[in-house]
Amino acid sequence: MTTALTLSETDTRSLIHPHTTIGRPAEPLIFERGEGALLWDIDGNEYIDGTCGLWQCPVGHGRRELANVAADQIAKLEFYSSFGDYSNTPSILLAERLLQLAPTGIERVFFTNGGSEGTESAIKLARLAHYNSGAPERTIILARTAGYHGMGGGSLAATGIDKLREGYGPLLPGVEFLGKPHGLTHGENATDILIAELEERIAQIGPQRIAAFIGEPVLGVGGMVPPPEGYWARVQEVLRKHGILLIADEIVTAFGRTGHWFACERFGIEPDLIVTAKGLSSGYVPMGAVLVSRRVLELADGALFLHGFTYNGHPVGAAVALANIEILEREGLLDRAKGVGQRLLEALKPLEELDHVIEVRGVGMMLGIELDRDSSSVQAGARADGVVVRASGPSIVLSPPLVITEQQIDTLAQVLISHVKAAA
Amino acid sequence: MTTALTLSETDTRSLIHPHTTIGRPAEPLIFERGEGALLWDIDGNEYIDGTCGLWQCPVGHGRRELANVAADQIAKLEFYSSFGDYSNTPSILLAERLLQLAPTGIERVFFTNGGSEGTESAIKLARLAHYNSGAPERTIILARTAGYHGMGGGSLAATGIDKLREGYGPLLPGVEFLGKPHGLTHGENATDILIAELEERIAQIGPQRIAAFIGEPVLGVGGMVPPPEGYWARVQEVLRKHGILLIADEIVTAFGRTGHWFACERFGIEPDLIVTAKGLSSGYVPMGAVLVSRRVLELADGALFLHGFTYNGHPVGAAVALANIEILEREGLLDRAKGVGQRLLEALKPLEELDHVIEVRGVGMMLGIELDRDSSSVQAGARADGVVVRASGPSIVLSPPLVITEQQIDTLAQVLISHVKAAA
Repeated sequence: MTTALTLSETDTRSLIHPHTTIGRPAEPLIFERGEGALLWDIDGNEYIDGTCGLWQCPVGHGRRELANVAADQIAKLEFYSSFGDYSNTPSILLAERLLQLAPTGIERVFFTNGGSEGTESAIKLARLAHYNSGAPERTIILARTAGYHGMGGGSLAATGIDKLREGYGPLLPGVEFLGKPHGLTHGENATDILIAELEERIAQIGPQRIAAFIGEPVLGVGGMVPPPEGYWARVQEVLRKHGILLIADEIVTAFGRTGHWFACERFGIEPDLIVTAKGLSSGYVPMGAVLVSRRVLELADGALFLHGFTYNGHPVGAAVALANIEILEREGLLDRAKGVGQRLLEALKPLEELDHVIEVRGVGMMLGIELDRDSSSVQAGARADGVVVRASGPSIVLSPPLVITEQQIDTLAQVLISHVKAAA
Repeated sequence: MTTALTLSETDTRSLIHPHTTIGRPAEPLIFERGEGALLWDIDGNEYIDGTCGLWQCPVGHGRRELANVAADQIAKLEFYSSFGDYSNTPSILLAERLLQLAPTGIERVFFTNGGSEGTESAIKLARLAHYNSGAPERTIILARTAGYHGMGGGSLAATGIDKLREGYGPLLPGVEFLGKPHGLTHGENATDILIAELEERIAQIGPQRIAAFIGEPVLGVGGMVPPPEGYWARVQEVLRKHGILLIADEIVTAFGRTGHWFACERFGIEPDLIVTAKGLSSGYVPMGAVLVSRRVLELADGALFLHGFTYNGHPVGAAVALANIEILEREGLLDRAKGVGQRLLEALKPLEELDHVIEVRGVGMMLGIELDRDSSSVQAGARADGVVVRASGPSIVLSPPLVITEQQIDTLAQVLISHVKAAA
C-alpha cells in the first residue's frame, strides 16, 4: 500500500525536481486531483490554483472531455513521425485551425513539444531564412533583460535572467541583450527610451549581422510585466526597416490569457514567427507550435529544413489541442479572461498604497505584484491558506485558469492581500 | 466532410514538416490507424512498420490499455508543475521504477519531455557539476562523428552530422568531435585505434577542460552501428582516469531495443548520466528521463539546479510510461527483441554478398543495411510494397516494434531484400 508518507519519501530519494538544490530535496507537495481552478493534495487538502501550474491551463483541470479525446486518438493511432512526407489527421486539422486564428501574415505551422523546443526552432529558422536568402552573416539574436525563452542551449542563451545561466558554461553565441522593457524603470517616456536604445544597439552591432529580435509580448517569468504604451508597434517598425525578423514568444500569452487568441493582436503587431505552447493544449498533453509568416517563407524558400523534434505533430497532442481550442471558444473564455482579470486587478490594486509594494499590474489573466523584497514568504503564506501562487523573485505572479469563478477570485485576492500585508 | 484529398491539400498548404524543403511540400502519406506492427493510411492501405516511426514504439501501436491509463490520469490530474516542491504520484512511482531497472550507480531521475531536452539537460548538469565542484573550466563536451543527440542549441552542437548544422549559425561552443566509432572504417584494431584517438585528443585539449563525453551505445541516426568489440569498457576507463563524465545517450537504445533495459548493461558500462526518451513511454505521450549517478550527485552537491522544462514529470506521460514498462515486462519483449532481431539479421545478412551492399549489422531490434550509395530508392520501393523503412543516407535503418510477428518479419525481410537488390 502506497501511503502519502511513502510517496513523499520516495520522491525525495528518487527525484531531482527543477529549481531545487542538488542533495537537499524539499518535502514535496503532492497534488492528486484537479478540477477547474481547484487542486487537492494527497492528504485531501484543497487549494485554489492561482498560477495554472506554469500558466499552462486556460481551460482548467480535470476535463473528462479531453481525457476521452486523448483516449480515442491513442486507441486509433497514438503516434507516428511527421518527418518528411508522413502525416496524420489531427495535426493537419490543428494546423488549419491555428491558421484561422493566427494574426495576419502567418501562413504555416511547425509543431513542437513545448516552449523551449519552439524557441530553439524559431531561432534556427530565422537564421536559416537569412542564410538561404544570401545573408549568412545575419546570425545575431536581440533579446531583452528579464526575458524568458526556455532552457535549451539556444533558448537559455536568449533568456535575460543572469542567474538562470550561471554555471552552465558557454551557450549559443550571438545573443545581444537590450534593457528590461518596463515602464516602471524608465518612467513616462519609457517607449521613447527603449526605442532609442534599440536603434542605437542595432547601429552598433550592424543591422546586416542581426537575424531576429525575440520578446514576450508581456514578460512572464520576468514578473508579468506589460509593455509600455505603443512599444510593440514601434519595435516592429524599427525591425522591419532593418530587415530583422520579429519572433514573438507567446508561450505564455497565446490562447486566451490576455483576452485574445494572441497577445500580438492586442498590441497590434504581426510578427514573423510566433512561438506557442502551454495554452495550446492546456498542458493536458505536451504540445507546441511555431507559426511562420509569409516573410520567413519567402526568405527560406527552397531551403532544406533539416530540423524537427521526434514528437512533431503528435496526434494525441493535436487532437487534445483542437478540443481545447473548441472549449476556449464554446465557453467564451477569452472574454472571461478580460472580465475576471479586471476583477482581480481591481481587488489587488489598492496594495500599491503599501510602502513595500512597488507595483500591481496586469493584462487579462496575467498579473504581477512586485515587492521591494523577495516575495517567497507570500507564496508560502498563501499556500498555508489554500491558495497556490508563484514567487518569481520580488514578484508574485498570477495566472489562474480562465474558468476560475468570481468567488474563487475573491478568496484568492483576500488571501493574497493578507500575506502581502504580512510581508511588510 | 473531410476527404483524403482535402486533408492532403490542407497538409501541403498549412504545415512545415521536419526534413522537408521550405516551399516544396511533398504529398503526404497520412496514417490513420495503427495496431501492433501494422499501420493503415487514410485510403485503407496496410503497411508493416519497420521503424516504429522514429524508433519510439517498442510495445507497438494502438494499445487500448495505454489509452485507458492516459484517460484515467487526465480525468484525475492532467498536469501540474514539478518545479520546486510540487510533485505528483505517477512521476514519483515512475522514478522509483526506473531506479530499480537502471544500471548500478544511478541514484536519481530528472524528467523531460523528449530526447533533445534530455541531452540539453545532461550537458547542463555535467557542466554544473564541475562548476559546483570547483572546476568551472571543465565545459568542453567530447562527441563523435555520426552521433545524433538532438536538435536544440546544445544537443545539435553535439551532433556529429555536418549537414544537420548547416545554415543555423554558431551553436553551443566547446564541442570537440572524435572519429566515427565504426569497426568497418577502422578494421580489426578499431577499438585500439579509437581509444588511442580518444587519449590523444584528451591530451591535446587538456583533461582539466573537459566536462563530459557523450555517445550513443549503438549509433542510431548514424546508421544503426554497433561499437567495435570492447570499445565502451575502455572508453569508460579512459574517461574515469581523467575525471570526465560519461553521458550515455540511450534515447533510442533503452527499454528493450537491444534486448536489455539499457544498452549500457549489454556493453558492461556504468555511465554517469543516461539520457532516455522514446521507448520510455513508447511515444504514446511524450516523456523522457535523465538518469543521474552518485558521482554526478557528489560533484553537484549543494548546487541550485535552475533548470527544467515545463512538462517535467508530466503525470499522464509518467502513468503511461509505468504501464508501458509493465507491458514490456509482462510480455517478455526484451527477450523477444533478441530472438526476432536475430531472425531478421539472419534473413538480411546474405545481402552482404551483393557488390553494392557494404554491411548488414544489428544489435537486438536495431538493424542497418549500408549501401555504397544513397538508399532512398529502397525506402520508396519498400513503401510501395507495404513496408515502411527509413533511409538514413546510405543506410536503411530498421527498428520495428518488438511485438512484430515472425510472419511480419519474414515479409519485411523479403520486401527489403528485393528492393536492395533492385538498387544495384
